[in-house]
Amino acid sequence: MTNKPVLLIHGGAGLSSPKNLPQERQEEAISVLKKIVKDCYEMLRNKSPALDVVEAAVNMLEDCPLFNAGYGSVIASDGKCYADASIMDGKTGLAGALCGSTQIKNPISVARKIMERTPHVMLIGEDVHQFAVSEGFELIQNEELLTEYRISQLQRAQKSNKLLLDHESVEEGKSLQPEEKMGTVGSVALDVFGNLAAATSTGGLVNKRIGRVGDSAIIGSGTFVNNQTCAVSSTGHGEVFMRHCVAVRISHLMEFGGLSLQTAAQQVLEELPEKSGGLIAVDREGNFCLPFTSGGMFRGFCNGGEPVGLIWK
Amino acid sequence: MTNKPVLLIHGGAGLSSPKNLPQERQEEAISVLKKIVKDCYEMLRNKSPALDVVEAAVNMLEDCPLFNAGYGSVIASDGKCYADASIMDGKTGLAGALCGSTQIKNPISVARKIMERTPHVMLIGEDVHQFAVSEGFELIQNEELLTEYRISQLQRAQKSNKLLLDHESVEEGKSLQPEEKMGTVGSVALDVFGNLAAATSTGGLVNKRIGRVGDSAIIGSGTFVNNQTCAVSSTGHGEVFMRHCVAVRISHLMEFGGLSLQTAAQQVLEELPEKSGGLIAVDREGNFCLPFTSGGMFRGFCNGGEPVGLIWK
Repeated sequence: MTNKPVLLIHGGAGLSSPKNLPQERQEEAISVLKKIVKDCYEMLRNKSPALDVVEAAVNMLEDCPLFNAGYGSVIASDGKCYADASIMDGKTGLAGALCGSTQIKNPISVARKIMERTPHVMLIGEDVHQFAVSEGFELIQNEELLTEYRISQLQRAQKSNKLLLDHESVEEGKSLQPEEKMGTVGSVALDVFGNLAAATSTGGLVNKRIGRVGDSAIIGSGTFVNNQTCAVSSTGHGEVFMRHCVAVRISHLMEFGGLSLQTAAQQVLEELPEKSGGLIAVDREGNFCLPFTSGGMFRGFCNGGEPVGLIWK
Repeated sequence: MTNKPVLLIHGGAGLSSPKNLPQERQEEAISVLKKIVKDCYEMLRNKSPALDVVEAAVNMLEDCPLFNAGYGSVIASDGKCYADASIMDGKTGLAGALCGSTQIKNPISVARKIMERTPHVMLIGEDVHQFAVSEGFELIQNEELLTEYRISQLQRAQKSNKLLLDHESVEEGKSLQPEEKMGTVGSVALDVFGNLAAATSTGGLVNKRIGRVGDSAIIGSGTFVNNQTCAVSSTGHGEVFMRHCVAVRISHLMEFGGLSLQTAAQQVLEELPEKSGGLIAVDREGNFCLPFTSGGMFRGFCNGGEPVGLIWK
């Protein structure tokens, strides 16, 4: 009952270099990350369960237009945005996930209800909306999730007729700037009771096929928790993370290979193609890491001191 | 180039006892399983790649009304059937998956095309149909996948207003007979080139929510392959298999824990709640196993001798 809690958040990996992201945008992102870390760490200090805290952190990231999840999600090829999200609770081993919702303001909260209020792990498509309504969520219009910035990003992407990662950009035939990467969002936490939790939420890829699902919805790839090992939320090239089952691979390297969290996380990232992305992870002892192989990753953390917000290496 | 090939198939776990399944039904199933094993093993002997052979085996299982995939899938709460499927290729490490298709005759073949012809791993819902058409597949009417037997099973399930596993039954307020379990189908193979592949396909649960997705579509849970370790296809309580990332857990126990395939597979099944299901797995050396914790599992195999078809322990 006396664990020192730990909170980590991320707002996506895939940035290339500080010179490509306007200074004021960097400052705004860092300020938001620190604020979220501060508020959510306060919850942990006040004995909130890790599960509540990762949900709250992801809700705040979903509500912030800077990041690719909830409000400000990137837009698919048909002009709508589609959400994928997953959450896992180390205390119970239960998990919830959803894919392809278009009318949910905070997908991670619906994923949690799927975990808690159905015998299932994953629901997709229209059924997510039906379920959400039955649980008292209000459906919103998809347009309410779109920002001017994402609409212009889609138009530039469609002009070049290219499938884009959320963090890629196209202008006059050039790639979208890597600095338009706002990636997935996620959070992992260790609470004072020694329980771990993880949550991940995303709008996917700019100009993507409407049915494409990435790792953010997949237990074992984008999200995984085992109270005996660690909690992981990842961000990056979704298909690569799915084929490598990145999140659970880290847990298994600890469980079966005896590696430390940091060594396991580093090893798994190094096995992937270069610049595949990053992740945040915390273990049962409160050790944590936020490694990435991209140029930058929006991230923040606190384990008792001042809240930290960072972008670059 | 001189590996002795191995082929395994399954048609679902969850049977309880021989006395509850009519003798003629047992004989029919065993005969079908043997025939599929024989035909597909012949492909392996003739140097077909493992990937082609697991696809062919699953196509045959999908086409057989005895098993819960493709034609003869169980029916969801709205009177339609919904397919989930996934396939993985050990040679390339690539994977493909789909969820929630209603108009595809052979879901595993579309999952393979998603792997080979898109940069993605998973597509869901209507987009699966759009993609399939673009690849030359013909869409069918959902009714063409339904059998009289499955329609009566749904009616009995709805009478009792119960969510049912595909292998559960309800009659006059009683559970559907366990013998109505026809489960997921799947196949794993080792070819003469030393490559592994796995494929899994299902119609899900009787009277399920239309958006529910189980482990059959999830790389790492229902299906996983690593050419350095093993190929796995699982069947059983989908949500349990998803939370435990069953398929990749076996691979990681071999890779990080140094366990043999048999020991790893047995250990992972024993960690699950009792009667959770079963799986088929083959390693790079040609060792294989078909363990299950239910009363029975429709299964077949060949590694050079006579084709074998089995139901009970």
